[in-house]
Amino acid sequence: MAAEPAASRPAELTAAAALGLIGRGRLSSEELVQDCLARIRDLEPQVQAWTFLDEDHALAQAKAADERRREGHATGPLHGIPVGVKDIIDTGDMPTENGSPLYAGRTPREDAAVVAKLRAAGAVILGKTVTTECAYFHPGKTRNPHNPEHTPGGSSSGSAAAVAAGMVPLALGTQTNGSVIRPAAFCGAYGFKPSHGMIPRTGVLQLSRTLDHVGVMARSIEDVALAMETLAGWDAGDPDTRPSARIPFAAIAAEAPPIRPVLAFIKTPHWDRVDAEAKEALGELLEALGDAVEEIELFPSAEEAWAWHKTIMDAEMAHNFARQWRDGRDQLSDPLRALIERGREVKAVDYQRAVSLIGPMQQSFEELFTQRFDAILTPAAPGVAPKGLGSTGDARFCTLWTLSGLPALTMPLLRGANGMPIGVQLVGRRHFDARLLRTARWLVDNLAGV
Amino acid sequence: MAAEPAASRPAELTAAAALGLIGRGRLSSEELVQDCLARIRDLEPQVQAWTFLDEDHALAQAKAADERRREGHATGPLHGIPVGVKDIIDTGDMPTENGSPLYAGRTPREDAAVVAKLRAAGAVILGKTVTTECAYFHPGKTRNPHNPEHTPGGSSSGSAAAVAAGMVPLALGTQTNGSVIRPAAFCGAYGFKPSHGMIPRTGVLQLSRTLDHVGVMARSIEDVALAMETLAGWDAGDPDTRPSARIPFAAIAAEAPPIRPVLAFIKTPHWDRVDAEAKEALGELLEALGDAVEEIELFPSAEEAWAWHKTIMDAEMAHNFARQWRDGRDQLSDPLRALIERGREVKAVDYQRAVSLIGPMQQSFEELFTQRFDAILTPAAPGVAPKGLGSTGDARFCTLWTLSGLPALTMPLLRGANGMPIGVQLVGRRHFDARLLRTARWLVDNLAGV
Repeated sequence: MAAEPAASRPAELTAAAALGLIGRGRLSSEELVQDCLARIRDLEPQVQAWTFLDEDHALAQAKAADERRREGHATGPLHGIPVGVKDIIDTGDMPTENGSPLYAGRTPREDAAVVAKLRAAGAVILGKTVTTECAYFHPGKTRNPHNPEHTPGGSSSGSAAAVAAGMVPLALGTQTNGSVIRPAAFCGAYGFKPSHGMIPRTGVLQLSRTLDHVGVMARSIEDVALAMETLAGWDAGDPDTRPSARIPFAAIAAEAPPIRPVLAFIKTPHWDRVDAEAKEALGELLEALGDAVEEIELFPSAEEAWAWHKTIMDAEMAHNFARQWRDGRDQLSDPLRALIERGREVKAVDYQRAVSLIGPMQQSFEELFTQRFDAILTPAAPGVAPKGLGSTGDARFCTLWTLSGLPALTMPLLRGANGMPIGVQLVGRRHFDARLLRTARWLVDNLAGV
Repeated sequence: MAAEPAASRPAELTAAAALGLIGRGRLSSEELVQDCLARIRDLEPQVQAWTFLDEDHALAQAKAADERRREGHATGPLHGIPVGVKDIIDTGDMPTENGSPLYAGRTPREDAAVVAKLRAAGAVILGKTVTTECAYFHPGKTRNPHNPEHTPGGSSSGSAAAVAAGMVPLALGTQTNGSVIRPAAFCGAYGFKPSHGMIPRTGVLQLSRTLDHVGVMARSIEDVALAMETLAGWDAGDPDTRPSARIPFAAIAAEAPPIRPVLAFIKTPHWDRVDAEAKEALGELLEALGDAVEEIELFPSAEEAWAWHKTIMDAEMAHNFARQWRDGRDQLSDPLRALIERGREVKAVDYQRAVSLIGPMQQSFEELFTQRFDAILTPAAPGVAPKGLGSTGDARFCTLWTLSGLPALTMPLLRGANGMPIGVQLVGRRHFDARLLRTARWLVDNLAGV
């Protein structure tokens, strides 16, 4: 089981560690960004995580952050920390091309809400990371940093690969089915998809209002919490966000649980797709956790979740890509065109029925969390990243948690025989995202024997 | 042009006037309710406004209100005032049968949110008023109080007729297309459909989340404002309501406008359906208002609103009535069955497109209101209530304002040659409902030469 990487150079530091050094004047943002850029120069020919990177622009932001600190101005909670941004998230100073020739050369005028929040927190927007075509299945150029013949997963391929390869400590991804959890699991990063509506999606390419989430890639749970403090919140442009008090993610994630957590192990109806070595590795982990885990069966209606998810995703993407389908059909990949054509045939009654069943399913999960369990332990993917770059792998183990809008974290705790990471997914109660991170930290510490 | 009716007996008082007398101890709630019941006994054989009325239960509520006051307890803002409730709005102490044999004998366990609010404000829930079948087109038994051979309009037929006939000073209606404004106009009452989301719909038969509104029938603008103070607000069960500060409807409606209002007269694309006498009456009203009114053209996209409304209403009703259609199709009227069958064929992309066009249309109206106009003046219906009881008349002059969720008030200011009322509709800026009532009061005072 993997621990946090030892930091022999600035690029390998977690964001929290780098912030500590910057705060004590022992590291500058410029040094940190320089080292990240050096690492990218070394590894990018193999990994191909970035679709836009302007070294001078990145360094100028870092120098400005250092200058601000030297002059004694207040610094934000991510002061001087480089962040990678998935290329379906708008940046006012960099192209945003959505991984599709339809958007080649597109330069938005404004930052997405999350990018504006990162800048306000003092972060350096390092560059744009590779996405699959319109965050759907058709792969981009990125390769798995552990083995370039294996997929990095998708659709947030570049963000997961860049963080796992030590090119940048934090990156933004998005998930409409399994696009944060799956690539993070395949690349060996922590990947966090928060509760639906927790992070505003204003300025992010919309696939499906019901299913779209912005998420975070990092190399520690602490860093996930740190990023969430900046990213979570209400935004006028996203009707699914809600005004609420600021959530102290980092403080809650750092606490010890008041009582020993109990986890529910759920195989899901797709357990037979998990490969033998992943089953065995997960079995060892369950053994190590002992009576802190109980295996439970899903309530029967949850088995329909995959069908509802498909209906909603097909119908909403067909709506959101109506113009692209009308005007640029020939520039869409076959899978995306097929999805839109499927979605155009969905009946409004079937679509509404699928959407209306989410609430009752959330209620069933709510009972599970309030009656007994702190979190659900479940596979993040069927196994290690599959060989080949033609597909980004199976999203099936993320679908249920995306549809129900529950917070989900994948942790790089296991490895396959070929040395590639196997993610372990922990799913929490809706809107109790910080508590999920606390439970995750307890789990990691517990396994490390701390 | 009609003024408020002179009150020769308690049942003819407005709610505000009755409240004043009750507050000064010159009228008891029991006397008021007794007189309403006497009036109902006289007129109900002809008007048929009520589907459930238990005199003893109504009187018991009134006596309890009087008792409460005698004992010196705090009294609510509608203390002792009888209110009629449309029979698609749940009442825990009376049947709620939705105007359909499918719901015969149905007795909900809980009050709808609006009924609970009325009770908390001290109101007497007098009884349940007739609705068309499931608040759609198939008429109930109610007749127009001005002439029993004419329709009262629908779907809030009983509420409009009861208020106009002096049976009750206030009643609740609902509108998904023209179901508050049209019957109020035909019966000669004030009818108010507030901004979408202003009044919670929890516990009200759902036809269409996007289009459903709860509204109010009254005999004065002051009474509409009084009712709105109690009815408006957030409710956990209605996701389209929003938390906000309490709006002082009555105080705002009673104010003089700080500057002389300017009204936009809009004929709508259906002006050719307005009959000659209504056009003439409206023309005289416009003349009386002089340069306070300017005729303007609708922006072109608004012409599509009728088609979008149909798509949404068909699709959402087909979803919400899926079980009734499956299990009780033979007990639905032909028009309702036809609507559901149409709705079942609507494509999800067309449905989503229609819903997505509401926002931009609201934005266009927003510009109209912020740039120049205080309110829009427009017909409430094509003319007086048509003769015959087989149809509830044409909702076309309400569709646009329902779809765009703007507050709309019909005022009984004109009359046809046969003495029947012609409503004048005033439409206001979204979420500025109290200001619309203020403008309406200014208009009524202005015409009365006050």
